[in-house]
Amino acid sequence: MKLTKVITSAALLGFAGAAQLAMAAEPIAPVEPVKEVNLAEAELGKKLYFDPRLSKSGFISCNSCHNLSMGGTDNLKTSIGHNWNQGPINAPTVLNSSMNVAQFWDGRAADLKEQAGGPIANPGEMAFTHVLAVDVLKSIPGYVREFKLVYGTDQISIDQVTTAIAEFEKTLVTPNSPFDLWLLGDKDAITADEKAGYELFKTSGCVACHNGQAVGGASFQKMGLVEAYQTKNKAEGLAGITGKDADRMKFKVPTLRNVEMTYPYFHDGEAQTLTEAVDIMGRLQLGRKFSDKENAQIVAFLKTLTGDQPTFNLPILPPSTDKTPVPKPFD
Amino acid sequence: MKLTKVITSAALLGFAGAAQLAMAAEPIAPVEPVKEVNLAEAELGKKLYFDPRLSKSGFISCNSCHNLSMGGTDNLKTSIGHNWNQGPINAPTVLNSSMNVAQFWDGRAADLKEQAGGPIANPGEMAFTHVLAVDVLKSIPGYVREFKLVYGTDQISIDQVTTAIAEFEKTLVTPNSPFDLWLLGDKDAITADEKAGYELFKTSGCVACHNGQAVGGASFQKMGLVEAYQTKNKAEGLAGITGKDADRMKFKVPTLRNVEMTYPYFHDGEAQTLTEAVDIMGRLQLGRKFSDKENAQIVAFLKTLTGDQPTFNLPILPPSTDKTPVPKPFD
Repeated sequence: MKLTKVITSAALLGFAGAAQLAMAAEPIAPVEPVKEVNLAEAELGKKLYFDPRLSKSGFISCNSCHNLSMGGTDNLKTSIGHNWNQGPINAPTVLNSSMNVAQFWDGRAADLKEQAGGPIANPGEMAFTHVLAVDVLKSIPGYVREFKLVYGTDQISIDQVTTAIAEFEKTLVTPNSPFDLWLLGDKDAITADEKAGYELFKTSGCVACHNGQAVGGASFQKMGLVEAYQTKNKAEGLAGITGKDADRMKFKVPTLRNVEMTYPYFHDGEAQTLTEAVDIMGRLQLGRKFSDKENAQIVAFLKTLTGDQPTFNLPILPPSTDKTPVPKPFD
Repeated sequence: MKLTKVITSAALLGFAGAAQLAMAAEPIAPVEPVKEVNLAEAELGKKLYFDPRLSKSGFISCNSCHNLSMGGTDNLKTSIGHNWNQGPINAPTVLNSSMNVAQFWDGRAADLKEQAGGPIANPGEMAFTHVLAVDVLKSIPGYVREFKLVYGTDQISIDQVTTAIAEFEKTLVTPNSPFDLWLLGDKDAITADEKAGYELFKTSGCVACHNGQAVGGASFQKMGLVEAYQTKNKAEGLAGITGKDADRMKFKVPTLRNVEMTYPYFHDGEAQTLTEAVDIMGRLQLGRKFSDKENAQIVAFLKTLTGDQPTFNLPILPPSTDKTPVPKPFD
């Protein structure tokens, strides 16, 4: 069913009815605002997300590589970690990541809470240990009080730390993109070219993997389906977890929400522009060479997926005390 | 004139009169809220302050080492720069830095605007050049529009960049500390011990250098006046600028505002705690060994200098475009 038909026939039903019909007929759904948040826990999680004392150096926080000023990414091919370590894979955006079927490109963490513990203890990222991170927090009265308020106990555990970070991350959704406004019935929210791009996105098959609220994030797919993907990056995707040869180069389909802000693209970060990414995806995944005009229309559509960025006060972190273990950036 | 006398005699004048008298008699003045700010320029400056694209790596921003979640410092002995370079000197707080007589420990920048250009082009810090930083900004329509709004021209210059950052930094003052509330007449804003610490701070001579609104920042003084300061740090202070032997180890007196948050202390960051810093300052600068009780009282007073931290929304940075030069973290 063509969208234009839906709009035309639905117009008779009035605005609300049209919006419902249009939404029901589309493979992409509007981002929903967060409905259930433990606010005190999310506030604590926000502080932890911004706190570099969860790293060995005292310099790297979650926000270093999933920077909320920059679409929840670092906009680098692969990230910079402890001691300027060059990361093995592109940092995925934290925005709307609560919608992902699993976390990391290879899905090795089931959820946000499990993910949050990874980088803290990764020697090439924050290079700390869970025990040492908790020791730091325990030495800071401002944190001890806040953990007690949220979890009702004087004890701080890594389980609480990652739960709080995950609760904050749940709030990082981006509703009200132009495309969502269009889905919700505002016919003028996107242009004719952007609409044409969306039609191409559907008819050429992109939408087979990039669908739902997050326009991705729901499945694992082989990178290089029709034609093999050439890269020097050593990541093997799902195969690294399952050990199955059939899972080689299977990665979690990334969300396309806010994709204008989350450059560069692919697990290796090798596609610097959306034009390049759309061209490669067309050829390697769909066996289709998009014309320049088609490519530009799809890119125009993709840019309508930029939603309201999370806005909040920069958190003020409780200061360390004389008892707080000192960061060791140069050991 | 003893403070108690001022309070006693002033009490007859009523609250407002007492406050004025008390303030007039004290060598420390309350932090004044900022009165004249170009808001659009400060908003632009805030974005630039948080933008790591002003560095070669795309990873380091002003906020990396002058972190506004952590008292405007990085809480490290010396900072981490490009390629994990170990910085030569402790990063001073940006909070209330507009009150400093000059910028940097050795005063080599006359003002905030001049300071802001330094780290961008320092090979051990952001490792970029002014030309390349401006080229990045010119390629980003969101910035081009905002610079035009603020400066009325399509051209972006490093002069505008540093002026905007300085305007933002002017807003980073911290009024309403407990000590300021006490100065302003709230007799219960600080405890008896904190008041005793302040008396010691005055009578023992700390206040000779740490005075005024910023409780420091107004002069250059020799580190190790009565007794030489032992350090492996190679910074020579003012002598590095003037070439005069008499200026060796003369550093700008740091502000003590928010000193509870700006650990570790001294130009080499070698004093990890306030207790240690007060002890060393007493012995080396004043020839006086504070008793444990005296030291604790002075530390208690110093902690009353923590004011309202600047609160603002984390800025959302305008995204790069296909034409934006790509960061080079690992070149």
